[in-house]
Amino acid sequence: MDHITRAVGVHRVLEPEGVLPQAAWRLDATPEIGPDEVRVRVRRLNLDAASYQQLHDKHFGDGARVRAEVAGIIASRGKMHNPVTGSGGMLIGEVEEVGAESPLGLRVGDRVATLVSLTLTPLSINDDLADWDGMSEQVPCDGTAILFRRSIVAILPDDLPEELAMSINDVCGTPALTARVVKEYLRQGITPTVAVLGGAGKSGSLSLAAARVEGAGRTVGIVPVEREATALRAAGIADVVALADARDPVGVSDAVVEALGAPADITIVCVTVPGCEHGAVLSTAEGGTVIFFSMATSFTAAALGAEGLAADVTMLIGNGYTRGHAAYALDLLRTDKAIRGLFEARLAGAHR
Amino acid sequence: MDHITRAVGVHRVLEPEGVLPQAAWRLDATPEIGPDEVRVRVRRLNLDAASYQQLHDKHFGDGARVRAEVAGIIASRGKMHNPVTGSGGMLIGEVEEVGAESPLGLRVGDRVATLVSLTLTPLSINDDLADWDGMSEQVPCDGTAILFRRSIVAILPDDLPEELAMSINDVCGTPALTARVVKEYLRQGITPTVAVLGGAGKSGSLSLAAARVEGAGRTVGIVPVEREATALRAAGIADVVALADARDPVGVSDAVVEALGAPADITIVCVTVPGCEHGAVLSTAEGGTVIFFSMATSFTAAALGAEGLAADVTMLIGNGYTRGHAAYALDLLRTDKAIRGLFEARLAGAHR
Repeated sequence: MDHITRAVGVHRVLEPEGVLPQAAWRLDATPEIGPDEVRVRVRRLNLDAASYQQLHDKHFGDGARVRAEVAGIIASRGKMHNPVTGSGGMLIGEVEEVGAESPLGLRVGDRVATLVSLTLTPLSINDDLADWDGMSEQVPCDGTAILFRRSIVAILPDDLPEELAMSINDVCGTPALTARVVKEYLRQGITPTVAVLGGAGKSGSLSLAAARVEGAGRTVGIVPVEREATALRAAGIADVVALADARDPVGVSDAVVEALGAPADITIVCVTVPGCEHGAVLSTAEGGTVIFFSMATSFTAAALGAEGLAADVTMLIGNGYTRGHAAYALDLLRTDKAIRGLFEARLAGAHR
Repeated sequence: MDHITRAVGVHRVLEPEGVLPQAAWRLDATPEIGPDEVRVRVRRLNLDAASYQQLHDKHFGDGARVRAEVAGIIASRGKMHNPVTGSGGMLIGEVEEVGAESPLGLRVGDRVATLVSLTLTPLSINDDLADWDGMSEQVPCDGTAILFRRSIVAILPDDLPEELAMSINDVCGTPALTARVVKEYLRQGITPTVAVLGGAGKSGSLSLAAARVEGAGRTVGIVPVEREATALRAAGIADVVALADARDPVGVSDAVVEALGAPADITIVCVTVPGCEHGAVLSTAEGGTVIFFSMATSFTAAALGAEGLAADVTMLIGNGYTRGHAAYALDLLRTDKAIRGLFEARLAGAHR
């Protein structure tokens, strides 16, 4: 099985030895590539929302200190792997060198985005992130990253701006899995109602759009503040938009029941703060499904919470990879003007 | 919704205010009951395996120190909620007082086991756990616990010894969910192969038994040491028994592929140590299902791991509650001599 371990990058793990790159504390990010590897010249990082939020809060919004910590993490770990949240993000760049035995089909000069987490991608930074103000999750930079045989990358489409394509890529697993679950209900003859906690964010709005495209029933987007409610109402991608704090189980389930007339068949958690597990379970109908996409989800809080509430619900860990997920998300962006508008406004705003 | 919050016990939460009992740091375990509550005279606790393991390891197997820490946790939190693992366990006792408005159908004197976690059950201990040597997860004790309107309890069956029924109750969600997933594959015309990591433990052996009863295809039980392999082989509930460390992704996936001829359709994680997520994903066929029952599972390791391995697998959080789960598990124990033998041997051994 040496073939498989090298395919997923075990040979780049420095410590502890023998684990997979995502579980490693430190990777070897040396730019020289092996015959089956690819080197990407990195132009931009897109930090995972939970990771950026944690760093932002820890440093009370001081951008210079956020920047210094991110640069320090990358230097010491050989990857952008937030040790507190356990999450990473994505990167964008140009293919700089392709090993003769790489099966990824890339050519030098291709503009690519990685669709696997930064937590397992060897990364080296050359400019100390000097061009980044630390005030948003989009990090312009100069550096190098290494792709393995089983790495997943998307060649960036020519018909969409780079920043736009990039901003969708780190959440593209969400709409694909939402679509799969909605279709499974429809196959069983049920037109499912859908509640999305954090409906105005990137993954949340894509979930709502995917649910609508696939033919879900009534949908509700739950958001924490009026500003997000206004934006989501204007986009028109949810049947109802309601205000509630997803960490307040009673408040959020009240809001969902009021919007849908009953608990949701499918509840999707896209909120990047901890403590939303019980609200999601309490918002879901008996026999329904909860999909947890937030990296702030606690496994034990979900498992024990459902048990403690005597809730017979199916709970899915939101897998970031589903076959064809990138193409699905880009198609939503191309065909759904409301979604594209939300993403463009988010980029234009570029503040939190 | 005051009705719902009280039904799940929010009125017993002391801090932080307004959260559900499982999320609370401290509960009010006062023995006096409200009109919709029930007081149980507690005779025995059964600590969650991950929780006991952590305490045992922390104190290097010193039973007196383990006992002191458990007593301290209960005194300070008003519940047995391990702050490190986040997990609890179950209890057994006799109904001592029933509020006039309780819907649970219990009578004074009923012998009951709670089927919700100790992490959300108000608990008060009167004997300082003096009868427990701290050397196993079964804790004889004298104390009181409070049940709410939505608490789940099982009246203990007369045809099975108390210790035996108790030892199955804390894992009875596992076989029921395993059965549901296996049946779903069969409905789709697929006879699924099943790999159980930690196949010789309580939840693991019940999973294997449930898979066989429901008509799964070839099964493999993965265990870490020869002693467990011998016991599992003797029980004959898995087609193959193989040795591997579930924390070693390559080793465990090699063992599964060798046993089944290919990765498993369904992989079930019943190992109580951290770091088994990647091995489980790598052991599972494209399009397959992983069920995580271990409370040591990391949500981010699972979500990012599957993505990093480009693995399109469905990942389920093992919900401890499934309708009818207790009856299902007790029936397995009654009808499957091999399972009953394993559980009886475990109780007779009563050492780790």
